[in-house]
Amino acid sequence: MSFIYLDNSATTKPCKEALQAMEAAMTRLYGNPSSLHCAGSEAAKLLSESRNEIMSALFGEEIRRFLPMSDIPGAKPNGYGQLFFTSGGTESDNIAILGTVERMSVDKPEIITTDSEHPAVLNTVKYLETKGVRAHYLRTVGGVVDEEELVSHISKKTVLVSIMHINNETGAVYDVAKLFSAVKKLNPDTVCHTDCVQSFQKIGFTPETLNADMITISGHKVHGPKGVGALWVSDRLLKKKIPAATVHGGGQERNLRSGTENIPGIAAFAAAVKANGGSSAYRDFTTKTEHLRKLLTDNLPEECIINSPAGQTAPHIISLSLPVIKSEPVLNLLSSEGVCISAGSACSSHGKKISYVLRAFGLDDRTADATVRVSTDTDTTEEDITVFCEKLRSAVRRMHR
Amino acid sequence: MSFIYLDNSATTKPCKEALQAMEAAMTRLYGNPSSLHCAGSEAAKLLSESRNEIMSALFGEEIRRFLPMSDIPGAKPNGYGQLFFTSGGTESDNIAILGTVERMSVDKPEIITTDSEHPAVLNTVKYLETKGVRAHYLRTVGGVVDEEELVSHISKKTVLVSIMHINNETGAVYDVAKLFSAVKKLNPDTVCHTDCVQSFQKIGFTPETLNADMITISGHKVHGPKGVGALWVSDRLLKKKIPAATVHGGGQERNLRSGTENIPGIAAFAAAVKANGGSSAYRDFTTKTEHLRKLLTDNLPEECIINSPAGQTAPHIISLSLPVIKSEPVLNLLSSEGVCISAGSACSSHGKKISYVLRAFGLDDRTADATVRVSTDTDTTEEDITVFCEKLRSAVRRMHR
Repeated sequence: MSFIYLDNSATTKPCKEALQAMEAAMTRLYGNPSSLHCAGSEAAKLLSESRNEIMSALFGEEIRRFLPMSDIPGAKPNGYGQLFFTSGGTESDNIAILGTVERMSVDKPEIITTDSEHPAVLNTVKYLETKGVRAHYLRTVGGVVDEEELVSHISKKTVLVSIMHINNETGAVYDVAKLFSAVKKLNPDTVCHTDCVQSFQKIGFTPETLNADMITISGHKVHGPKGVGALWVSDRLLKKKIPAATVHGGGQERNLRSGTENIPGIAAFAAAVKANGGSSAYRDFTTKTEHLRKLLTDNLPEECIINSPAGQTAPHIISLSLPVIKSEPVLNLLSSEGVCISAGSACSSHGKKISYVLRAFGLDDRTADATVRVSTDTDTTEEDITVFCEKLRSAVRRMHR
Repeated sequence: MSFIYLDNSATTKPCKEALQAMEAAMTRLYGNPSSLHCAGSEAAKLLSESRNEIMSALFGEEIRRFLPMSDIPGAKPNGYGQLFFTSGGTESDNIAILGTVERMSVDKPEIITTDSEHPAVLNTVKYLETKGVRAHYLRTVGGVVDEEELVSHISKKTVLVSIMHINNETGAVYDVAKLFSAVKKLNPDTVCHTDCVQSFQKIGFTPETLNADMITISGHKVHGPKGVGALWVSDRLLKKKIPAATVHGGGQERNLRSGTENIPGIAAFAAAVKANGGSSAYRDFTTKTEHLRKLLTDNLPEECIINSPAGQTAPHIISLSLPVIKSEPVLNLLSSEGVCISAGSACSSHGKKISYVLRAFGLDDRTADATVRVSTDTDTTEEDITVFCEKLRSAVRRMHR
């Protein structure tokens, strides 16, 4: 079945380059990178090249010559921190949060995050609350993090601030750079983590411009495969041995993430990142998705309202409210016609609860329950958008009757 | 470069069926299984089918009709427990151990394991020792777990016993069924976990015949891809909500293992398990690898000694000592000629320490340092073995000079 796929924030279609890299790692380059023989060395080389590819996409091509040629443990800090491969964005967030708290020797530690984070952050922080950690959830009304509230909570006990870069349901870009700068003025020891799963290769940033100490990224949101992600960690943290490992074993990924490396997934992730355009990918992405957003806005049924964030907005995530009609039957009807959009995020979809993110944004429960998310990518066509708008119009009319 | 690949215990070559399943999941079936639309449903169906394929391989084809047709949360226990997908054997071991201790409300809990487990078990137990858990490491001299020692340590405080099924360096089959039976007579509440990464589809067993509560398996040891594994958990444990989750987030895998499911990896794992022959795979595997083992034994240079376990032995893992010659230069020489074997396990190879497993087996340090591992599989040919033996003979002679 061919889809009109407008749920790219849930997952993207892997590109052909990712598929080719995956095939190579499963046929020719299948050794275990920890093995000392030739088959192992080739896999280790592929691992190292993949790591450098993604580091260059994070920081810019100009840093490539400073990156180590091999993955042998013990390489010295080079000013650009380290990229650790994980099984995905969720695990990266978990390591960042659990691993930081594990290492910090602060009495009664506190964490600050927002009320609209991904469950990978929110539920990890809630888990730590059951262990005696105190948490503050900053408001994000209108898609803007309350900076005054943030500043009011920073203290010597604040071990971690975790704020996502782009909200996955509303497309609001949280001003992480400014917020982290405010944090560091008040407590330079506070670790600043940001989940960039929705922003990597989609809007322009580097770890430095965000003032971040740790960054989460994910393969399957950038046309790579599911089951692979990464956590970038600054040299400043690595010197303090932050974060601690949350998975113990053979010591892979410099002891931060044990387990035989997912070479097919990692190679495919790196191939996708390269094919997207590396550190310049966001330019083409922004141009295309801004155009699609405008096309969508121009063709939407008049009954629909776009929930526009008050601050900066990512062009590829559009939150739409269909007053009077619940989102679920609309989604089902559209799905039966091959159109894939979501209500809220995929991650909580089977729960069928009102989205806490949309509530935090400021929607009342009735409006939140009538809201859908359209998310585009570079492989979305103009026709996808116009057909979607037509089908949505006819769905809305049918439902109204 | 074409290899003579005799390091199958480190990792196996993915089969063509695994590759095809991976391709399908990356091209046609790329939806997020949590999404409610058609693309999501197709991915969710693939996830459920993959789970049933592996459950049938674990328990036997006859249970297939009792398995749920879909993965929707809330399905009732059916007597066969649940299979949870993870990022690999290491993570499965971590969940089994950390997740059990997290849930057990025993004062000063104790764990019993062996002195020759994989680092995924050993280092996780050692981590828990730093948190106040007491651990006993049973001796495994000659490749046999000391049952008397086990029995002497079981008490009301024993929350977990973790004993691997087949040792990855010596091929010794530990008599998990008998050992777990002894544990349960003395403390029925003790959770019995076994790492079956080296035994799944290689020797005949079911979770029931092993008297196990939790079983770890891995994709890349059975011609599936790296980056995917599973943890099987009995209904008895699930009723007690054991193990607890160690990764928090969107609630995938019935809340035990959050994070978007690695559908390409999971589908490829299941396809490999099916292609191997499901629950009967071990028959063909045993016949082939026993034949190869005999061929190897018959053709080995006379200077080499096979370290034969005193109890049952797995035919596919052969530990060879080359007295007087250190293993590392032999491995390097063989590798330069395209022959891939390992010293100890891949997991600790970059550490270059004397193998603690071989020490535990009873080898002195000098012999352990002169020991290599040959591991075969169904795609190993007779020629691989005879060429290896020739090359080993000439390497040993060159080194002797």
